[in-house]
Amino acid sequence: MAPRQKILLLGATGETGASILNGLLASNQFDVEILVRPSSAEKPAVQELKTRGVALRVADITAPEEELVSALAGIDILISAIGPNDLLQQKTLVRAAKSAGVKRFVPCAFITVAPPKGVMLLRDEKEEIYNEIKRLEVPYTVIDVGFWHQISIPPLPSGRIDYALMMPEAVIHGDGNAPNLLTDLRDIGRFVARIVDDERTLNRYVYTWSDVLSENEIFELVEEGSGEKIERKYETAQQIEKRLEDALAALSLDPTDPAKRMQVYIVQYVHSKYVRGDNQPRYAKYLGYLDARELYPDLKPVSFRESFVEVLEGKGKRPYY
Amino acid sequence: MAPRQKILLLGATGETGASILNGLLASNQFDVEILVRPSSAEKPAVQELKTRGVALRVADITAPEEELVSALAGIDILISAIGPNDLLQQKTLVRAAKSAGVKRFVPCAFITVAPPKGVMLLRDEKEEIYNEIKRLEVPYTVIDVGFWHQISIPPLPSGRIDYALMMPEAVIHGDGNAPNLLTDLRDIGRFVARIVDDERTLNRYVYTWSDVLSENEIFELVEEGSGEKIERKYETAQQIEKRLEDALAALSLDPTDPAKRMQVYIVQYVHSKYVRGDNQPRYAKYLGYLDARELYPDLKPVSFRESFVEVLEGKGKRPYY
Repeated sequence: MAPRQKILLLGATGETGASILNGLLASNQFDVEILVRPSSAEKPAVQELKTRGVALRVADITAPEEELVSALAGIDILISAIGPNDLLQQKTLVRAAKSAGVKRFVPCAFITVAPPKGVMLLRDEKEEIYNEIKRLEVPYTVIDVGFWHQISIPPLPSGRIDYALMMPEAVIHGDGNAPNLLTDLRDIGRFVARIVDDERTLNRYVYTWSDVLSENEIFELVEEGSGEKIERKYETAQQIEKRLEDALAALSLDPTDPAKRMQVYIVQYVHSKYVRGDNQPRYAKYLGYLDARELYPDLKPVSFRESFVEVLEGKGKRPYY
Repeated sequence: MAPRQKILLLGATGETGASILNGLLASNQFDVEILVRPSSAEKPAVQELKTRGVALRVADITAPEEELVSALAGIDILISAIGPNDLLQQKTLVRAAKSAGVKRFVPCAFITVAPPKGVMLLRDEKEEIYNEIKRLEVPYTVIDVGFWHQISIPPLPSGRIDYALMMPEAVIHGDGNAPNLLTDLRDIGRFVARIVDDERTLNRYVYTWSDVLSENEIFELVEEGSGEKIERKYETAQQIEKRLEDALAALSLDPTDPAKRMQVYIVQYVHSKYVRGDNQPRYAKYLGYLDARELYPDLKPVSFRESFVEVLEGKGKRPYY
């Protein structure tokens, strides 16, 4: 029997990282360790992971390459779920992965399907890392997941599901007809556990999904499930474009302000998903992505409807809280 | 019978463009027209193409998009073999191709295999066009060809093949062992005629080749064929890196000087091919390229040896003259 592959996960305490860790552990296919910064090693969230039997490696990813090479000793697969403000810090990690002979690097992707440059600043920074990977010929897999169910549910007039919503606002963008790839946050890890153990996905891009739904379809589904009628507000494509222009102008005045940057990220998601219509299977295939559902037809992801019913039943969980 | 596809070729009087035009005409599969600038329409080289029955479309590619859309009316496949100094001028052409409903855009690639960014300035500019294509979801094919036989032949001590050489210099770069993809200049068009008529190459990168040879192998082959002994000069990796540094420094002092830019292009070719070892099948596959020889096993390209024997026999032709 081949030895189990050893995976090192960076960002395990974030939302995406936690899903990945759960998926990897549940698969029972890998030896999983997590990489944490010295400043985080004693945090309760990290300590709690230790109680689940996950070994820690402590290293500062801004450290010199040699130090990171040591931290990567014996690792087969390196998965990064680093936060959006630290993406470019992965550069040294790419070089270290090359030197350490890592067999597959999964850089922090895990967003919607979008083109390489010029549409989403968040995607542009990820692209810098993908380009560094390609320059060094590091074996890699890029995994994008569409948008999470958990942040795609509109609020109900009764307020009874607000407990589970991150930004409750019943807004339909553009005409509401743009289809979007959706994945339950909890399924990211289940998909990742399959994808990283698959030769077919080496040096490829893969997207995951359970549903492809427009906002109009989501609103109808939520009304049907809840029996409540949601009053629609609309933001037109022109209004979104204006909002994007304003956010970019504000950021250009103060390029290092993380709040202004985050505002750009948020508006660009809206613009990419609903005005450009990027986050859908046709465009993903055009861009060269493999479809994780075609690769793993036996994997039954949690549907948007199932996820919504859980929220209705009080079993939801607000992300980032 | 399906109507013949209508191809518009830009850059038909250049070396690559001429090969493509020949290949397309020889295939007898397409209606071929060429796009020329108003300032070039009366040039003898263009007029000569008219005598071969090729229809001209006259447009300035720096014109507004609407004008280019008219110039593209009825075109199925647009192939650009624009010169290295005008690459970014293709941006409007991409938008016009989208608006005009062009079914496949072949942007100007036709160079060695290299990573998307940061290694070859020439490649970086091409990447800007590829990214514009992807943002607009224009159907495309990128075709790279390695290095031409015609510019890979070292000079002989007797001087008898100098008539066919562009830059006669018997230099081996690094240790001379880096394998390189080579294509006969005349075969580019034969490959292109197959590639642009193939659904498998839609929205993909493809590389062409006849041989994969190192400089040491080329020198041996040339010595064997000619019976002459070539004295080797060597340029080490360190010397190449220094030359690259100097060329970049000179360009940074005068970024718009085309001669300094060309010098960077030339040194970066050397660096990419011989120091990094980019221009080879393994890396091409890693980067996602399809292999044209696997796609068209019946296409027998002119080998490097055959090409060299022609030169020895006085039947060669110096490129760019």
